[in-house]
Amino acid sequence: MSTKDNILIIGAGLCGSLLALRLAQRGYKVTVYESRPDLRKVDISAGRSINLALSDRGFKALRLAGVDKLAKEICIPMYGRLIHDKEGNTFNSNYSGREGEYINSISRGDLNAILLTEAEKHENVTIYFNKKCKRVSLENNEATFKCYTTQEETKVKGDVIFGADGAGSSLRKSYYLERKFLFSYSQNYLTHGYKELEIPADALGNHQISKDHLHIWPRGDYMLIALPNLDGSFTVTLFLSYDEGEYNFNNLTSEEAITTFFQKEFPDALALIPSIKDEFVNNPTGALGTVKCSPWSYQNKTLLIGDAAHAIVPFYGQGMNASFEDVLVFDSMLDMYEGDWEKVFKAYEQNRKQNTDAIADLAIDNYYEMRDHVANPLFKEKRKIEMDLEKAFPEHYFSKYSMVTFNENIPYAEAMNIGRAQDKALLNLIADDEVSTSLEMTTKELEIILKKVQEQTNEILEEDKIAGLK
Amino acid sequence: MSTKDNILIIGAGLCGSLLALRLAQRGYKVTVYESRPDLRKVDISAGRSINLALSDRGFKALRLAGVDKLAKEICIPMYGRLIHDKEGNTFNSNYSGREGEYINSISRGDLNAILLTEAEKHENVTIYFNKKCKRVSLENNEATFKCYTTQEETKVKGDVIFGADGAGSSLRKSYYLERKFLFSYSQNYLTHGYKELEIPADALGNHQISKDHLHIWPRGDYMLIALPNLDGSFTVTLFLSYDEGEYNFNNLTSEEAITTFFQKEFPDALALIPSIKDEFVNNPTGALGTVKCSPWSYQNKTLLIGDAAHAIVPFYGQGMNASFEDVLVFDSMLDMYEGDWEKVFKAYEQNRKQNTDAIADLAIDNYYEMRDHVANPLFKEKRKIEMDLEKAFPEHYFSKYSMVTFNENIPYAEAMNIGRAQDKALLNLIADDEVSTSLEMTTKELEIILKKVQEQTNEILEEDKIAGLK
Repeated sequence: MSTKDNILIIGAGLCGSLLALRLAQRGYKVTVYESRPDLRKVDISAGRSINLALSDRGFKALRLAGVDKLAKEICIPMYGRLIHDKEGNTFNSNYSGREGEYINSISRGDLNAILLTEAEKHENVTIYFNKKCKRVSLENNEATFKCYTTQEETKVKGDVIFGADGAGSSLRKSYYLERKFLFSYSQNYLTHGYKELEIPADALGNHQISKDHLHIWPRGDYMLIALPNLDGSFTVTLFLSYDEGEYNFNNLTSEEAITTFFQKEFPDALALIPSIKDEFVNNPTGALGTVKCSPWSYQNKTLLIGDAAHAIVPFYGQGMNASFEDVLVFDSMLDMYEGDWEKVFKAYEQNRKQNTDAIADLAIDNYYEMRDHVANPLFKEKRKIEMDLEKAFPEHYFSKYSMVTFNENIPYAEAMNIGRAQDKALLNLIADDEVSTSLEMTTKELEIILKKVQEQTNEILEEDKIAGLK
Repeated sequence: MSTKDNILIIGAGLCGSLLALRLAQRGYKVTVYESRPDLRKVDISAGRSINLALSDRGFKALRLAGVDKLAKEICIPMYGRLIHDKEGNTFNSNYSGREGEYINSISRGDLNAILLTEAEKHENVTIYFNKKCKRVSLENNEATFKCYTTQEETKVKGDVIFGADGAGSSLRKSYYLERKFLFSYSQNYLTHGYKELEIPADALGNHQISKDHLHIWPRGDYMLIALPNLDGSFTVTLFLSYDEGEYNFNNLTSEEAITTFFQKEFPDALALIPSIKDEFVNNPTGALGTVKCSPWSYQNKTLLIGDAAHAIVPFYGQGMNASFEDVLVFDSMLDMYEGDWEKVFKAYEQNRKQNTDAIADLAIDNYYEMRDHVANPLFKEKRKIEMDLEKAFPEHYFSKYSMVTFNENIPYAEAMNIGRAQDKALLNLIADDEVSTSLEMTTKELEIILKKVQEQTNEILEEDKIAGLK
């Protein structure tokens, strides 16, 4: 290709801005329209999740665009989960038995700002803010934007249009409404919603609880989590049913009910959240939805990417990582088929769809695991054995969590298939008393366990294959 | 309840008319609006599937409404699949090893006519035709209908509104568009579409191939099936990819291509379809979609039922049966909670949703099974063993197919869970040479197989349970 196409990207969030940066690096003329104001000038974080988990898949994509080091500077490493019981006791559960494997708490806004600034350093990138995409005409390959400042509508054409406009994507809505092709689509909500609260820094600006952990207060029907921020505060998120059970968002309406609920279920957290009543009443309750769809592209003209193509629930800490990985995989398709957009789009979806479906399903699994299983003895024993195996055989054992989170070269779908079989093998071996843990296991003992787990995992995969299951 | 509520039913198809009949029998005042003309007066079958499979679940619901005998009179029993290979050889594969277990080919239109006529015998039932529901206002509990005769729009209120308006339900669309609550929704299309063709009766009005079978021509990437009609004809359905593979709906556009395709793949069928070119060109290509959603109801006002709540692909022959079973289950909820619609609706969905999800998934499984597995040696051996087991132990062995089709008291979800485990057990036992078939098995030999299958099935279910899987 001698002359590069004009690219129109809808959305300058995390995915859109990384995509803009990368396509600019490849020489495309890139125009980006974002509905929100420029977050480098205005604080728009109210009510949105203000920190996220960044891990190896995300870093790999940031590295491709040369911005990994900038991101690293604003990261807070979290080495494991710190589980809080009702009495205020805490239990540490590392994310990995290997050295140097941890996830990072990072500010969504600060990372987005880095990406926007890096993208704008390229003279072939133009970013417009306050311009909301209303619809995309697939026939004309033309997007209509409404300016929030002037209230005017403008139509913009692109040789290619990317919908990086998140879970509520306008491009996806146009796919659905224009009915130009059979569009498979699903939106599935959990029965639970979420609400964000804050543990502020102490008087000296320090974190009041360990900043080296992701904190969890699992209670079965509901759950509280907390991730550290650079300013010494924590963003706390309550996951709770809308209308089921003794406590739910619909009936926690009075100050008394809210306080009673927290005092009974999360007393140690309550002591650290001074403005709980105001925050509970004023912060919005967010929905937890999974979006899947197909096809992502229309002819050689438009493509859905990031949350617009596959919004997932936050329980695996992979939403941002998956969207960044989209850019990485898309870039590799450009390496192969640049010049033929239709081929690029089809090869991209062919490769990517199974993996974004997998992380969506894994994230739902983790919703149940975090709520219930972290406090379940069988699960606890499994985690202990897995930590021991990873420590003793760092090259040969990888838990499902490690495959998903720290092994960016294993596709999500593979991590899911192998990881689920491995979990099943291990849980059944423990339940059948075929493996058990003691405080100090010898390498010999662990080797026997490793062998049993590998054999059982392979047998499970083989039996599923014969039965025609994945 | 002393005064019965006014019921408004949208749709007088199979589900809507059975529901109208049953609610009338319970004493409700029922008004039904149907978008199509009265099929007892006008032939509206063009391009729609004109025969369907009726089996035990459907009959159970028809029995509740006292119309099973009328239905039986227009049934053609099909005892098994007759599989046609490319050379024109045929292989019989019974649906069950038990006596008296078979499915029935029945005309959609004739059965619908029976239900309409029976419903209209009740003076508390009024049915309007040619009135298309455009939308339902959830706030006012009011449906808007457009009359196809006068083009006028009228608004109709009901104490309770049922959306029995099929896969393209207006009530469901209103749930989606009005955004009054979090509405989980999915529409998923297969890569294949379908087209109906006809094998006419011979000159004497007789069936040209066995009328005691559902005929299948499985070819991996595509498939032809045929069900008998009372007039001696067969309705043939071709399932074929829209745009993949050597032959697909997009490239089969010339008469030559169509004939070449059939000559190569389905020569014996081609010889029986005289008008293939005209029919192929003139009959529409239908899409194969699965619809799932939740919640089905809004407050104590509206409920989705039948295909409107759960459209499924036709490969298990259960679409109509599932919709009829809806009416049966709904009726049992009325027995328990009549007078409190919200409770009835919630209890109904609580009971029913898992089962309609299950039959949707089973129908997709069968799509692959019918295309591929019926010609697969492992699968064939499994079917043979299952027939032998059902014959030898009619009270103790039930294949997945039998549980779904002939055991109306086993809910779909249970049939799926047990049936899948049993299939997996049997396929793995065969693959590992732990069981094998010979032409004549002794009861003793079969007893050993039965025991192995039962043990393995239980072990699979137990291991899944420990792993937290269903």
